[in-house]
Amino acid sequence: VVDRLVIVGGDAGGMAAASQVRKGAPDAEIVALERGHWTSYSACGIPYLVGGEIDDVEQLIARRPQDFRDRDRVDVRIRHEAVAVDLAARKVEVRDLERDRTYRLGFDHLLLGTGGVPVRPNLAGIDLPFVHGVQTLDDAVHLVKHAQEVSCSRVVVVGGGYIGLEIAEAFTRRGLHVTVVERNQYVLGLFDAPLGQRVTQAMRREGIEVHLQVDVLGFRDGVVLTTQGELEAELVLLGLGVAPNSALARDAGLRLGVRDAVVVDRRQRTSAEGVWAAGDCCQSRNLVSGEPVHVPLGTVANKQSRVAGINIGGGYATFPGVLGTAISRFCALEVARTGLSTAEAARAGFESVTSVIDSTTQAGYMPDAEPMTVLLVVERRTGRLLGAQIVGGAGSAKRIDTFAVAITAGMTVEQIVQLDLAYAPPFSGVWDPVQVAAREAIKQI
Amino acid sequence: VVDRLVIVGGDAGGMAAASQVRKGAPDAEIVALERGHWTSYSACGIPYLVGGEIDDVEQLIARRPQDFRDRDRVDVRIRHEAVAVDLAARKVEVRDLERDRTYRLGFDHLLLGTGGVPVRPNLAGIDLPFVHGVQTLDDAVHLVKHAQEVSCSRVVVVGGGYIGLEIAEAFTRRGLHVTVVERNQYVLGLFDAPLGQRVTQAMRREGIEVHLQVDVLGFRDGVVLTTQGELEAELVLLGLGVAPNSALARDAGLRLGVRDAVVVDRRQRTSAEGVWAAGDCCQSRNLVSGEPVHVPLGTVANKQSRVAGINIGGGYATFPGVLGTAISRFCALEVARTGLSTAEAARAGFESVTSVIDSTTQAGYMPDAEPMTVLLVVERRTGRLLGAQIVGGAGSAKRIDTFAVAITAGMTVEQIVQLDLAYAPPFSGVWDPVQVAAREAIKQI
Repeated sequence: VVDRLVIVGGDAGGMAAASQVRKGAPDAEIVALERGHWTSYSACGIPYLVGGEIDDVEQLIARRPQDFRDRDRVDVRIRHEAVAVDLAARKVEVRDLERDRTYRLGFDHLLLGTGGVPVRPNLAGIDLPFVHGVQTLDDAVHLVKHAQEVSCSRVVVVGGGYIGLEIAEAFTRRGLHVTVVERNQYVLGLFDAPLGQRVTQAMRREGIEVHLQVDVLGFRDGVVLTTQGELEAELVLLGLGVAPNSALARDAGLRLGVRDAVVVDRRQRTSAEGVWAAGDCCQSRNLVSGEPVHVPLGTVANKQSRVAGINIGGGYATFPGVLGTAISRFCALEVARTGLSTAEAARAGFESVTSVIDSTTQAGYMPDAEPMTVLLVVERRTGRLLGAQIVGGAGSAKRIDTFAVAITAGMTVEQIVQLDLAYAPPFSGVWDPVQVAAREAIKQI
Repeated sequence: VVDRLVIVGGDAGGMAAASQVRKGAPDAEIVALERGHWTSYSACGIPYLVGGEIDDVEQLIARRPQDFRDRDRVDVRIRHEAVAVDLAARKVEVRDLERDRTYRLGFDHLLLGTGGVPVRPNLAGIDLPFVHGVQTLDDAVHLVKHAQEVSCSRVVVVGGGYIGLEIAEAFTRRGLHVTVVERNQYVLGLFDAPLGQRVTQAMRREGIEVHLQVDVLGFRDGVVLTTQGELEAELVLLGLGVAPNSALARDAGLRLGVRDAVVVDRRQRTSAEGVWAAGDCCQSRNLVSGEPVHVPLGTVANKQSRVAGINIGGGYATFPGVLGTAISRFCALEVARTGLSTAEAARAGFESVTSVIDSTTQAGYMPDAEPMTVLLVVERRTGRLLGAQIVGGAGSAKRIDTFAVAITAGMTVEQIVQLDLAYAPPFSGVWDPVQVAAREAIKQI
C-alpha cells in the first residue's frame, strides 16, 4: 500500500491520478508539485479564447489547486519545481520558486506527469519576444492581447498541424492577416494528400496565405526569414508540436524511448520500481502498428493518469495504447483521423488499399446536408480497417469515433457494412457515410 | 447460377439486391414487381416534407424504375402486383393493375421484399377519410396539403413513437395545434423512463399537448374518442408502427415467426428452396439478446437486401443481426438508442445495472455547448455493455454509433473508457460523454 505519493506536474498527466489513488488508499499522503501557477487547464481551448469564442482565460481552468486539496486531500504545492530525483534515497529535490529555497521530499511512489514542451528549433532569433508558443495560460493571455491590438495586423504561423490550423482560424476571426508556413506539400501532414489538399484549399478560401514546401531559416524583428524570402510579421506563432519533457526522468536514470519519451509498461510503470509516468512526458503504443509512439494529447494523458492512479492505489488497470485519433475544426470544415494513414501503414509493413468516397452529412435531400469525404486505409489480404480520415461539414468529423472503435475491435470493412448504425434523414443517408466508405473499400480489395 | 430472379416489391428490401445480383450474374433475367407507382423512396423523409424543410415530394424518390432498368437491366413492372406464389410450379401469379389482367411468371429464384403495413387497429371509424398513415408518397402529398390548408388547425397523433414524434414536430412547425395520444407513461416507450420523460417535457415546451396513459376507442367525423374523453381533430395520424406484410409468404406456405414476419436464415433464405426475403417483411435477430425480432427500418432492409443479392448472385454474405439502433430529432433535441433498454435486458434474462450521466455536447466552456444525457445498461457480472440511450443537443445523438460498434464487439465499459476517441473543445470534453457514461457505469458495478 502506498504511503506517500509524490506527483510531479499539476496538469492532467499527474493530477488525474489523484482521485483514483485516494479511492484506493484513503490514508496515503499525496503531494503534488507544480512549478507554474495552475493545475489542470485546457491548452486545447487557447485558440477559442484567441478567436473570441470564449471570453475569459479563467474558463480554461478545469480544476484549481484548492479543488484538489478539498476533494482528494492532495497537498498541492504551486510554484514548487522538482529539480532532481534520487532513486536510491527515494527522495525528490524540490525548489520552492517563491521563497527561493530547496528541500528534499521523500516518497515511496513517484508519478511523473511532467508533460511536454513546445518544439522550438534552434534558429537565429527564435528567442525574440515576438515569437510565441501556444501552450501555457500565459501564452494565451499574451495572444489575446495581440489579437485585440490594432497595431498588430500580420501574424505568421510556423507549422500547418492542428494547432497551426486552429490558431490561424482564431486570428483570422479577429480580422488579422494570417500566413501559414508549412514544410510539407499540404497542411495536416498526418493526413493523406487528397484530404490535406482539401483543407489547404479551405484555408485559402478563408483568406489565409498558405506557403507550402517552405522552411523557416530564422527571425529578425518584424521579419520571418524563409527559404522563399522574407515575411513581415508583428507576431510569430510556433505550431511545431510538443516534445516530451523528460529531462528529470533522464537525469534520474529512467529508460527513455521514442523522441526521449519515458518508457512505461501497460500499467504506466517506468523502468524504476515505484516510479510511474503518464501523459505527454511518456511513451505509448500504437494499437494498429504495435510500435512505440509519442502522442501528446489530453485524452491520452487523462487515461494514462487514471490507470497509473488505480495501480498506485493498489488496484489493477492497464492502458492498451492509442490510435492517434484526432479532430479539429477549421471554420465550417471539420477534420478527423484515427489509426494509420496510407504512408504510416506502408512504413509499418502493411499491404494496404486506400479508398475515398464523397457523401453528405445528412440525407442528400435535406437542406442542411453538407459534403463529407471519407478515406479508409484497409489491409488488402484481410479487409481489416487500419485507418480512417474524414473532412467535411458540421456533424461529419465525430464519426471518426465509429471507426476508432471498429479498428480497436479489429473489424473488417465487411463487418463495418453490417453494423447497425443510426439513421434518420437529419443525421445521415440510409447508408451512413461510414458504411458508404466501407462498401467502396470492399470494391477496391 | 440464377436464371430468372423475380423480386416482389419495389422498395429497399427488394431492389437493393438488384445491383448485387447483376454483379454476380451478368446474364440473369431480373424482373421486379411493384404494385404502386414508385420504386425506392424515403418514407423516413415524409415528416421533413410535411414540416416544410423539403419542398417537393420528388426529392424523396431515391431511384426511379428507369434507373433500375438502365443501371442494372432490371425489368421493373410498375402497378403489377404479385397475388400468389406457386412454389411447386415455381411461378408467381401477377395482377397487372392498369390493364386489369392476370398472368403467371416463372422463376428459379424469388426475393420477397413486400415491406410492411402501418398498424391500423380495428377501431370504430378507423377508415374515415380524416384518419391517415404516414407511410406512402400518397400519404405524404395528402399531409402536405393538410398542413398548408387554413381550415385544418387541429391534428391528433395516435402513438408517441419515432414517427409520432417526428410528424408532431412537423405540424407544429407549420403552426397547427398538435395533440399526441400515448398509451404508455411517457413517449418513446423503447427508452428508459428518465429519457422518455425528458422528451415528453420537451414536446410540451414546444406547445404540443401530450396525453399519457390514454387509449383511443374510435373515431367520429372531427372527433377522436379516448378513455379520457373526446378530442377534436381535422386530421388524425396513426403512428403505431409497422407490421410485416407477409400475407403472400404465408399463403405460399413459408414459415413465419415473430409478429408473422417471414423467417430467414443469416443468408436471408426463407424456409423454401430458392425463395429469399429481406426488409420490413422479414424477421431478424437481436445481437444482444439473441432473440428473433421484427425491426422495420430502412437501414436493415438495405443491408438484408444487399446480403440476399450477393447470395442469389452466387456469392457469400451473411446478415449478423440488429441492435435496434434508432435516432430521431425533435426540434433542437436529439434522441437515439441502441441495444437493450433496462426492461428489455431484464426480459432477456440479464442481470444489469443502469447508469445515467449528464454531460455536454462540447467542452463545457464553449458557447455552443448543450446538455447531453447518456444512459447505459451494463451486465453486472461482466461489465459488458448491453444498451445505450442518448438525449441531448446538436451533435449528441450520432454518438450512439460509437456504442453500437462497442456492443457489436462485445466490449465492456472498462474497454470503452480506454477507447481512443476524438477530442477537441468544439466536439467534446476531454472525456467524451460516451466515456463519462462508461466511467459512471464502472462505479455502479
